[in-house]
Amino acid sequence: MRYADRMQHIRASEIRELLKLTEQPDVISFAGGLPAPDLFPTQQFADIFHDVLAHEGESYLQYGTTAGHNPLRASIATRLGKTSGVLVESENILITNGSQQGLDFAGKLFLNKGSVLLCESPTYLAAINAFKAYEPRFVPVPTDREGMIPDFLEEIIRNEPDIRLAYIIPEFQNPTGKSWSEARRRRIMEIFSRTEIPILEDNPYGELRFEGKTPPSLMSLDHKGQVIGLGTFSKILCPGLRVGWITASEELISRFDLIKQGADLHTSHLPQACIQRYLETCDLDAHIASLRTVYASRRDAMIQALDRHFPEGLTVDPPSGGLFLWAALPEGTSARRLLERCLDLKVAFVPGGAFFPEGGHENTMRLNFSNMPEPRIDEGIRRMRQACLSL
Amino acid sequence: MRYADRMQHIRASEIRELLKLTEQPDVISFAGGLPAPDLFPTQQFADIFHDVLAHEGESYLQYGTTAGHNPLRASIATRLGKTSGVLVESENILITNGSQQGLDFAGKLFLNKGSVLLCESPTYLAAINAFKAYEPRFVPVPTDREGMIPDFLEEIIRNEPDIRLAYIIPEFQNPTGKSWSEARRRRIMEIFSRTEIPILEDNPYGELRFEGKTPPSLMSLDHKGQVIGLGTFSKILCPGLRVGWITASEELISRFDLIKQGADLHTSHLPQACIQRYLETCDLDAHIASLRTVYASRRDAMIQALDRHFPEGLTVDPPSGGLFLWAALPEGTSARRLLERCLDLKVAFVPGGAFFPEGGHENTMRLNFSNMPEPRIDEGIRRMRQACLSL
Repeated sequence: MRYADRMQHIRASEIRELLKLTEQPDVISFAGGLPAPDLFPTQQFADIFHDVLAHEGESYLQYGTTAGHNPLRASIATRLGKTSGVLVESENILITNGSQQGLDFAGKLFLNKGSVLLCESPTYLAAINAFKAYEPRFVPVPTDREGMIPDFLEEIIRNEPDIRLAYIIPEFQNPTGKSWSEARRRRIMEIFSRTEIPILEDNPYGELRFEGKTPPSLMSLDHKGQVIGLGTFSKILCPGLRVGWITASEELISRFDLIKQGADLHTSHLPQACIQRYLETCDLDAHIASLRTVYASRRDAMIQALDRHFPEGLTVDPPSGGLFLWAALPEGTSARRLLERCLDLKVAFVPGGAFFPEGGHENTMRLNFSNMPEPRIDEGIRRMRQACLSL
Repeated sequence: MRYADRMQHIRASEIRELLKLTEQPDVISFAGGLPAPDLFPTQQFADIFHDVLAHEGESYLQYGTTAGHNPLRASIATRLGKTSGVLVESENILITNGSQQGLDFAGKLFLNKGSVLLCESPTYLAAINAFKAYEPRFVPVPTDREGMIPDFLEEIIRNEPDIRLAYIIPEFQNPTGKSWSEARRRRIMEIFSRTEIPILEDNPYGELRFEGKTPPSLMSLDHKGQVIGLGTFSKILCPGLRVGWITASEELISRFDLIKQGADLHTSHLPQACIQRYLETCDLDAHIASLRTVYASRRDAMIQALDRHFPEGLTVDPPSGGLFLWAALPEGTSARRLLERCLDLKVAFVPGGAFFPEGGHENTMRLNFSNMPEPRIDEGIRRMRQACLSL
């Protein structure tokens, strides 16, 4: 049996295989991007699912429309006006199976084999993997603490004639937790506005800001329909229902609709209807406020634990929100080797090298702080230190 | 903005646009492949979703594994042993968002641009659309009432060096409702077994047999792991939850797992857990038996209505199961033009020409009989006759 050529690029990640070992409950995992399950509105969903099924079950167990449940599309559009400062209607929203599906669809819509895709470096591993199915050439744009560096971006745009997509996570970036400065957002959008390059703005964590003011989204700075937004309920409600969305011009949404017809017809209908019911009858803003409180305190606990257990040698850039903390071991230390030792001590994280499309940066690591309560965070960091000393 | 080359092939279907008009409740629709919503186990699901969420909500609102909920994979494997005569384990099952997603993934796994894809003619429209994203060349294999014609298949295999996939719906085929004979299944599998061509056996309707004995599945006749099965709960439980599956060798499942990681991480977790609970606590076989009774009676009602209202001129080949009846108007009559007239009278169906990759056959049509109660079926066929007379 012969596979398609693209399968050469779609390979099992060594790290993912390692991390499969971390699924036992006795492992302290800083690895995944998992929200805290004890904060899910579980009881509210139990009542909502029962009520929606009992009264409107026939509708929501039947096929739905490809673009998604219309009242939910409208709610998302309204909410985006409030949270991201963008003026959109339900016609600008297409519901996806989590925002991961939006990554796949953007690849399908824009990328030919060999097309250039611009991204940050480091960037979200699973996005790279989604795009690889379309065999683009990844061109990482050098970044500093404020975001992509304008001079490098301009130079790349001058030298690369076939750039088909730019993938950006400006808010609490995965893996670094970085939030792009407002000035940099404006400057980068000004550069892109001179081109026709579509910009995919992935924003799963934007509402999880612990302090400071949210800078304008790239979409709110876009005056020509160039930005495509990806959003999700995974981090603000729960990830298991797989409900995310694409925000774009009506013309682009009609293309994504055709892609989704072929890919899976539509997203599971009942979860869409039940999330809509949650938005109508519960207080999502209050729920998000409580997530922020808990996650900020877990972030603080992790920073304190790192200070306590690693008195020398770790470079940490504390994030103002999101789920991740990015840290660098002393130059020359291998985070992959550290992970192997850590797994023996039942603690896990993701080595940072995996997030760099061009390789290198083997001394970096991504630590998730949202999934574990404070005492486990401290114990996990203590074990990491112990593993470090045995390297 | 420039789209990828593949988007030239992914276009809105004129018929789909027409059929959007049929979504009002006063339209009698024979168009979609919709199961009867009044037969969904709605109340049982209301209790199950409540119970699963109340007791295990934290698990099923959290991320799940890419291949799917393990107990459900095991249940499907066991059930396939009973219904399709295949010996598989949970490791041979990957859960998809409906079987439509299995079509997309098979395209992604096997098809390069220009690869040859063998299919029946006519065949399932949405499968063609899923595969088009991978830009294959469709080579329809001529079929008769028993299935693909062996001589033609052998000739095509001799002449086409780059066949990468064969797509077959041997049981209650969409759109014709035809079930391949056992002798033909054996002969075709014997021919394929001399090649390495993967065979995608799509079987959404197999359990909806009204009379006669189910012939062996292609997978049960496969001795070298060449057949990939697609299955779904859409027609035997409900389509809105979007839970289907791929059945294949462990090696192939590991490839599909990588593809699914990139495509959407996993299928909605809670619906998988609730379908599993349904399988554990309810009687799916009894439920399917009641579907068979209702759908057989609706099929009969449609055949009688066609006899009554079209005393001359319609060629109908009554199916022994499934959801569809295939009919031919007199040569030279355009089913597309008939549809336009029918829409004025608020009755809808799908013109058959759309199902032929090579075009033609404009006098054929596909009529769904599962979604409407008997009196509406009779009234709908009466209106179709009226529309016909006005052509």
